[in-house]
Amino acid sequence: MTKHSIPQATAKRLPLYYRFLNNLSHQGKTRVSSKELSEAIKVNPATIRRDFSYFGALGKKGYGYNVEYLLEFFKNTLNQDELTKVALIGVGNLGTAFLKYNFTRNNNTKIVKAFDRSKKKVNKKIGSVPVYHIDDIEKHLAGVEVAILTVPQAEAQEITDRLVAEGITGILNFTPARLTLPDHVRIHHIDLSVELQSLVYFMNHYSNEK
Amino acid sequence: MTKHSIPQATAKRLPLYYRFLNNLSHQGKTRVSSKELSEAIKVNPATIRRDFSYFGALGKKGYGYNVEYLLEFFKNTLNQDELTKVALIGVGNLGTAFLKYNFTRNNNTKIVKAFDRSKKKVNKKIGSVPVYHIDDIEKHLAGVEVAILTVPQAEAQEITDRLVAEGITGILNFTPARLTLPDHVRIHHIDLSVELQSLVYFMNHYSNEK
Repeated sequence: MTKHSIPQATAKRLPLYYRFLNNLSHQGKTRVSSKELSEAIKVNPATIRRDFSYFGALGKKGYGYNVEYLLEFFKNTLNQDELTKVALIGVGNLGTAFLKYNFTRNNNTKIVKAFDRSKKKVNKKIGSVPVYHIDDIEKHLAGVEVAILTVPQAEAQEITDRLVAEGITGILNFTPARLTLPDHVRIHHIDLSVELQSLVYFMNHYSNEK
Repeated sequence: MTKHSIPQATAKRLPLYYRFLNNLSHQGKTRVSSKELSEAIKVNPATIRRDFSYFGALGKKGYGYNVEYLLEFFKNTLNQDELTKVALIGVGNLGTAFLKYNFTRNNNTKIVKAFDRSKKKVNKKIGSVPVYHIDDIEKHLAGVEVAILTVPQAEAQEITDRLVAEGITGILNFTPARLTLPDHVRIHHIDLSVELQSLVYFMNHYSNEK
């Protein structure tokens, strides 16, 4: 599989497909139709068939798709055998929610460390993840590739610079800040205000496409 | 502007553009180049120019774009004059984070009510939003169009059915559940585990595209 061969919208659905196929496999199912997949994950069957054609998985009429073939493909594509270590920066309400959330279910990522400056949180564990002082980021990032940023907007750029200097190459940014980064660092933004506004826009302008 | 005339990826950037242009306008700026926009919101200039061409906004070489024209356009397109009322269902860590988050900044959406079953939270206010008992959803949803779903996965479908029966037409779903909905209800999913997995996939397979 060459780089860039899968459209980004398709790539974003990979974890969903993987999770559902994993469940099917655990139930002992060996094949699945695009209709069943569609009902389970609420993506329309035509989209599923188009997505799967990018992976070279062509369903057979009256048979559907081979579960193990797909599962193996997604496992490799999503690097399920390799654990990506994640640091969470900022243990407020949002950060705490992530620490308590079970990221490891069907997943290859794990929050291994958290950082905050509150005395109530530093040197404690939340959801089994140790919390360190934010001034000590530089001491604790060995082996960590990804950071989840849940700090106040005003601190986001300074902390990002420190994370990048320590070798972080992926950031999931929950602050509204638009950050300046070197080209080799990948950033995804989840801005709650933008997400809500975007939902309202789509409610007003688009018919529903599942 | 007919329905469906703007690609969905472009539509998702509208709130970002609006927010930045609003800031520029408050600073008294009358024009902006795609390069300045690009640096501020970290979307590449070619994407900005293509997006803006859908809105009929054609920048002039050496002048850029007219800030007021764009702002007026985004204001109308995003219905900024109309407030969309939002209910938050499930006041755990994630729900509490949203209640404390300032959704009203440059925004046309407002969380007006929250629901939970914890005695510690019901009949209190969090971030100035009143919290009601989740059994009383049906008594308090008049005028509310959108719901943010931050309940445990196991409760998601049943609560969604109740919300839809009360006339909710948009759901921002933070649970991993894939929900069954009538066609007229729009749903956007933000699944934290999928977002993290998707970031790692893009880190491994795509060069950075800002």
